[in-house]
Amino acid sequence: MHYPSTLTQIPRDLVSLSDYERYAKRHLSGAIYDYISGGGADEVTLKRNRKILDQYFIQPRVLQDVTKGTTATRLLGESFRHPILLAPVAFQKIAHPDGELATAAAASLLEAGMVVSTLASESIENIAQTLKSPKWFQLYFQQSKAFTLELIKRAEAAGYTALIVTVDAPLHGIRNRAQRAGFQLPKGIEAVNLRDRPPLPEAILDPNESIVFQGMMTEAPTWNEIEWLIKNTQLPIILKGVLHPADALRAKDMGVSGIVVSNHGGRVLDCVPTAIEMLPVIRSHAGDDFLLLMDGAIERGTDVFKAIALGADAVMVGRPQIYALAVAGSLGVAHMLRIIREELEVTMALAGTSNVSDIRQAILWQGGFQRL
Amino acid sequence: MHYPSTLTQIPRDLVSLSDYERYAKRHLSGAIYDYISGGGADEVTLKRNRKILDQYFIQPRVLQDVTKGTTATRLLGESFRHPILLAPVAFQKIAHPDGELATAAAASLLEAGMVVSTLASESIENIAQTLKSPKWFQLYFQQSKAFTLELIKRAEAAGYTALIVTVDAPLHGIRNRAQRAGFQLPKGIEAVNLRDRPPLPEAILDPNESIVFQGMMTEAPTWNEIEWLIKNTQLPIILKGVLHPADALRAKDMGVSGIVVSNHGGRVLDCVPTAIEMLPVIRSHAGDDFLLLMDGAIERGTDVFKAIALGADAVMVGRPQIYALAVAGSLGVAHMLRIIREELEVTMALAGTSNVSDIRQAILWQGGFQRL
Amino acid sequence: MHYPSTLTQIPRDLVSLSDYERYAKRHLSGAIYDYISGGGADEVTLKRNRKILDQYFIQPRVLQDVTKGTTATRLLGESFRHPILLAPVAFQKIAHPDGELATAAAASLLEAGMVVSTLASESIENIAQTLKSPKWFQLYFQQSKAFTLELIKRAEAAGYTALIVTVDAPLHGIRNRAQRAGFQLPKGIEAVNLRDRPPLPEAILDPNESIVFQGMMTEAPTWNEIEWLIKNTQLPIILKGVLHPADALRAKDMGVSGIVVSNHGGRVLDCVPTAIEMLPVIRSHAGDDFLLLMDGAIERGTDVFKAIALGADAVMVGRPQIYALAVAGSLGVAHMLRIIREELEVTMALAGTSNVSDIRQAILWQGGFQRL
Amino acid sequence: MHYPSTLTQIPRDLVSLSDYERYAKRHLSGAIYDYISGGGADEVTLKRNRKILDQYFIQPRVLQDVTKGTTATRLLGESFRHPILLAPVAFQKIAHPDGELATAAAASLLEAGMVVSTLASESIENIAQTLKSPKWFQLYFQQSKAFTLELIKRAEAAGYTALIVTVDAPLHGIRNRAQRAGFQLPKGIEAVNLRDRPPLPEAILDPNESIVFQGMMTEAPTWNEIEWLIKNTQLPIILKGVLHPADALRAKDMGVSGIVVSNHGGRVLDCVPTAIEMLPVIRSHAGDDFLLLMDGAIERGTDVFKAIALGADAVMVGRPQIYALAVAGSLGVAHMLRIIREELEVTMALAGTSNVSDIRQAILWQGGFQRL
Ligand SMILES: Cc1cc2nc3c(=O)[nH]c(=O)nc-3n(C[C@H](O)[C@H](O)[C@H](O)COP(=O)(O)O)c2cc1C
Ligand SMILES: Cc1cc2nc3c(=O)[nH]c(=O)nc-3n(C[C@H](O)[C@H](O)[C@H](O)COP(=O)(O)O)c2cc1C
Ligand SMILES: Cc1cc2nc3c(=O)[nH]c(=O)nc-3n(C[C@H](O)[C@H](O)[C@H](O)COP(=O)(O)O)c2cc1C
Ligand SMILES: Cc1cc2nc3c(=O)[nH]c(=O)nc-3n(C[C@H](O)[C@H](O)[C@H](O)COP(=O)(O)O)c2cc1C
Repeated sequence: MHYPSTLTQIPRDLVSLSDYERYAKRHLSGAIYDYISGGGADEVTLKRNRKILDQYFIQPRVLQDVTKGTTATRLLGESFRHPILLAPVAFQKIAHPDGELATAAAASLLEAGMVVSTLASESIENIAQTLKSPKWFQLYFQQSKAFTLELIKRAEAAGYTALIVTVDAPLHGIRNRAQRAGFQLPKGIEAVNLRDRPPLPEAILDPNESIVFQGMMTEAPTWNEIEWLIKNTQLPIILKGVLHPADALRAKDMGVSGIVVSNHGGRVLDCVPTAIEMLPVIRSHAGDDFLLLMDGAIERGTDVFKAIALGADAVMVGRPQIYALAVAGSLGVAHMLRIIREELEVTMALAGTSNVSDIRQAILWQGGFQRL
Repeated sequence: MHYPSTLTQIPRDLVSLSDYERYAKRHLSGAIYDYISGGGADEVTLKRNRKILDQYFIQPRVLQDVTKGTTATRLLGESFRHPILLAPVAFQKIAHPDGELATAAAASLLEAGMVVSTLASESIENIAQTLKSPKWFQLYFQQSKAFTLELIKRAEAAGYTALIVTVDAPLHGIRNRAQRAGFQLPKGIEAVNLRDRPPLPEAILDPNESIVFQGMMTEAPTWNEIEWLIKNTQLPIILKGVLHPADALRAKDMGVSGIVVSNHGGRVLDCVPTAIEMLPVIRSHAGDDFLLLMDGAIERGTDVFKAIALGADAVMVGRPQIYALAVAGSLGVAHMLRIIREELEVTMALAGTSNVSDIRQAILWQGGFQRL
Repeated sequence: MHYPSTLTQIPRDLVSLSDYERYAKRHLSGAIYDYISGGGADEVTLKRNRKILDQYFIQPRVLQDVTKGTTATRLLGESFRHPILLAPVAFQKIAHPDGELATAAAASLLEAGMVVSTLASESIENIAQTLKSPKWFQLYFQQSKAFTLELIKRAEAAGYTALIVTVDAPLHGIRNRAQRAGFQLPKGIEAVNLRDRPPLPEAILDPNESIVFQGMMTEAPTWNEIEWLIKNTQLPIILKGVLHPADALRAKDMGVSGIVVSNHGGRVLDCVPTAIEMLPVIRSHAGDDFLLLMDGAIERGTDVFKAIALGADAVMVGRPQIYALAVAGSLGVAHMLRIIREELEVTMALAGTSNVSDIRQAILWQGGFQRL
Repeated sequence: MHYPSTLTQIPRDLVSLSDYERYAKRHLSGAIYDYISGGGADEVTLKRNRKILDQYFIQPRVLQDVTKGTTATRLLGESFRHPILLAPVAFQKIAHPDGELATAAAASLLEAGMVVSTLASESIENIAQTLKSPKWFQLYFQQSKAFTLELIKRAEAAGYTALIVTVDAPLHGIRNRAQRAGFQLPKGIEAVNLRDRPPLPEAILDPNESIVFQGMMTEAPTWNEIEWLIKNTQLPIILKGVLHPADALRAKDMGVSGIVVSNHGGRVLDCVPTAIEMLPVIRSHAGDDFLLLMDGAIERGTDVFKAIALGADAVMVGRPQIYALAVAGSLGVAHMLRIIREELEVTMALAGTSNVSDIRQAILWQGGFQRL
């Protein structure tokens, strides 16, 4: 069995999300740790995701009355206790035998929205049953439209209330760290929701053709597939992995309900801009009402605050959930969520902001110290 | 007993304030050292406090006559031998059995103003008796107004001449370093001046309420309390921990006598701007006559010079006093003060400035080398 | 014999060009490794070549149809499968006994253009016979014009289709790293194509003269020699090592067909600008049609993409070919070329660009995050 | 005896000025090494002196005819073979028993101007006799004007042709590194030229007075002393240690012949600007004809080139001469001078500049890559 033992109580020195990363190294095999924590190529983007967040500074305010303060917010008409969602993370059983069910239990406890991956290692129906907080389904387009539709119908039936379509990973990133570590999905873990997927047609390339352009990219969705999707579901659609204002506008015009400004945690193409830097640009193009989520290196309440101040409606947390899961199962994920939620409250209080819209008006300063 | 031995003479290689930090590691237990030296969360602000100071450069002037030079200055009508005060630092007995009394003796010797904390581990009356140089009292608002008033009256009676009201720490920072080290106040050390404080009412939160907003922040002072305070004391009032020009202006308009531009040594909210960066912004809003103190990472005569050139009337020194106290008691604090005062004189001489107002006119250059 | 053993199959953790550098350390003697990897003086430029590339960010686009995508391009009327050429690298037998022939075989397999150095350790005729992809000849002017002409005629006869004249190395750089390591060309390796070169006249300097100005630089070509060259060959001429727009314009006006924007891999003069920074400046002066190649620290598909987006028509790869050669001979070079070509395709696909001209229009962002 | 053995031939891996620093660590005792290499306080300025130089980039030019190239230049009417002088460095016998005489012999061989310190450990007459290249005398004002005049008259008589008056060190810097190492001048080494200096009057300070302002600074020269000096010598006067344009202008207006833009190698006041950054500012105020020397971290031919391109007429080299002296005596200093001179020639050749005035017109680029 590949699981090292899991903690059943939280040690004293586990007080922040980065502590979970530190602990996770001991609770995961090297190759699995490298797969989870790693990014594309030289990890320039992965490192910048974190580094750039530390170059924004929050303007505190003193002596404000915040006793009516709340983190509650609404996204696409649904109520959320706080603006911190669990990002879709595939194959959670690689971190813990209870996988997505443990995560869903923790999310329910901490009233966090959870986005369930197409590549979950547990059936999306089982997860939905455990999950009491808002549940959204992350869709990877399948080559067969019929099968894609089947997935959507299952998600609708199971009570998922939004579809997040991931559009920034039509092919695997060049994940050199995971490759060097020889990462392979452990035996017995699989994308259970794709079991009935029809087999792919065999691709034969001629010598002038490219395995990328004429191979993998022939299965990738285009804007046409998004149009088709809008016609084929009642659920609101969110595109995940948009970094260009023009792409955001096109999505909005087409009837998409929102986007996740994201570089997929630096896991696909290296050397792309960070979501936090693109956020204000995209917000200023997309207008105040278009839903903007953001993810990438969110680890602190101050990070959540900064992302919202720069234009996000809410953020998603990726790797920390899987580290916490590996370290202490459902307990870990719940504790992790509590830490970051409380950090956000402390930040709001000290910045004199009583709610999410106040944060949107808050002042940040940047490294070079221009006012934003 | 938790005190390692204290030096009774100064070793040859202890020649700067940072040397005291180096030595202090050997004279303090790990957890206490982490509590003192640490900051909030990832210590982004703590590190920037120091780093940014090193990115300002002082323009030297040659061949000036400075034989009439002096560091003497007046703050709120009181005479100070030099513009370097001891910042309020709680529980000084964690560093040395003589605690605040040793510090006060050293301050007297070096003619340094001292700000005594509400959380002193010695009675404010005893400290006042030892302290021959200017004495100010740092006030933390207590939930009971009556008890707050009692503290103020004691301070007035003991001869303190100003009240510094700390407004940037209505709740504990998220001090992960101290938490990880398992810091606890050693037995026998306590906030002796708060012994008679009435017990806090029990707080019961309903599930939708937040321990931050509806819990801790209900005890935090607001601008109303500052108005109340102005009416209830004759002492001049200084707000400590202001970083926003609008807050500075509001304080000034209300009748507050000055502010300390400070981020509390990076100990409360992480990722806030540094005092040194906000100083010129605040000075330009607050006008030339409003008292501005500054603290945060002041360790060198050149730091003092820079802070004044950027708009401060005087600076305060926090951690170095407690390091010096741990290393060599009263002797250490006195030596530490002498070092930084002489460094300031040398800096003034080489910059061709004869007094504090000359420094205010001095030219600084910044990293990227724009003239300020 | 100075060759450590060569790999005959590619290990699992050799998945990027920088991995070849890592492996090459084990397959090369220390002094040879230092000679190859090292640069001039303090290697400020060498390090910046790499560092600056990581400060440009590629704007991805989503949901584009790239199924017609191709890397194919035309340079000086000739077809290239992809815009990645092998830069001229002298004395390839120092890395592998098969030297330039192994490289040529790999280039043929991966359909990469190869530029053969005047200082090849194999005859240019033999190399030309092996090489099935585009072949260009890199010319170092010889002091004897007659002998220079002889080289050109041989290159023409052997089927080389362009002359790259290197103009940035009229004298050896100050290669301190190689000097400190005591690098010497191993016995038996020589510039075989220069065997018949007439002996140099003996130089006698008077005490006021300089070994640089009145010594070595008397053999260096000037613009006059370029004019002479244009008259004496039918082949298109490309100047390698141009970094100043005025020099580029002068070359263009004179009838030169293109330039390589390059600092010779940081191997000659230290502290010069990087090619990637000068590229857009030179492109904007030289106009859209003038051929611009670029080299220096190209290691990733994203690097190729960036260089083209900043104005290059194609790039050249220097050190990685020699590392790959040392590690696994012809197999290594072929594998190395396949990696970078596929990385380029992945980058193009994720940036929504279908061909080289699309890349030229692509958006990059810079460190400080101004749009270029 | 405190001298470790000296090399009598130059090892293969000693090929740059920084190599001399590396070797010098083995040829000097720790405290002496710390005294020489160290700077003021936290060495912020010392480190920046070096770092900032690496942030300027030289624009190379190709295919220029530089066969008439020369480094020769004229300063104050005197001919110099090259624009690299030996900065005044006190007490050279701490590095080598032959002290200043060895340095003077090397300077003669390499035709380098040498500035002899008031604090030389050898008589200025003996040094003058050995020194065949341009000789200037560095003057520290003495408290007694009569004795100062005596020094000047001796310098005139011995054939020194200019006076460099150091004005940036009226008091010792706060040299914490040397203090921590417990540096003391070794027995037997002294400022032999000051042996006849009249004893200083005893200073008695009252408690309100400062040891800096009312103590040491009472001995410091002011502009009045410079006026007096101009009247009392025929030699041209250069002020060393000027960093402010207004001070440069005042000097020029008063009849001073030039200045050394310098921060004394970061040895006096820490946190002052670098000479290289102030150079262009001062040049633009002082006009094209006023003599500007520059020193601080000059170690490479490219550094010399940059300083001249930014406005200097010539540069001075401080620490490297003393490292070279320690490593290999006169041979070392001569070798060190040859290295940097040849590096300058190589740089000039590759930048297409034939003489010092060409360098003054050369183009530099800066880190952030604005054209200067
Ligand atoms: C191990 C792992 C698996 C992931 N699986 C998916 C997935 O199945 N679908 C998806 O859209 N994103 C997936 N992501 C990306 C995350 O949703 C998210 O965008 C990214 O992790 C955010 O960055 P962070 O990890 O720095 O918080 C995955 C990320 C990780 C680390
Ligand atoms: C151990 C410690 C205790 C402190 N206690 C108090 C306090 O009781 N009241 C207060 O206003 N500030 C307190 N401070 C903050 C200091 O007054 C001051 O703002 C800060 O230390 C300045 O930064 P510096 O330590 O970098 O000089 C404390 C700081 C430290 C390090
Ligand atoms: C070992 C070695 C030998 C080289 N020989 C030559 C040469 O003979 N002619 C030439 O024009 N450039 C030569 N170069 C420079 C390369 O053509 C190219 O400009 C440089 O290596 C590009 O940088 P990169 O190595 O970072 O890719 C050589 C470079 C190296 C590393
Ligand atoms: C050991 C030492 C002794 C020095 N003595 C003198 C001196 O006697 N007079 C003086 O004007 N400058 C003196 N200097 C400063 C140098 O002249 C020069 O300004 C400085 O060293 C230049 O920086 P560099 O060492 O980085 O080249 C001394 C410097 C050093 C390192």
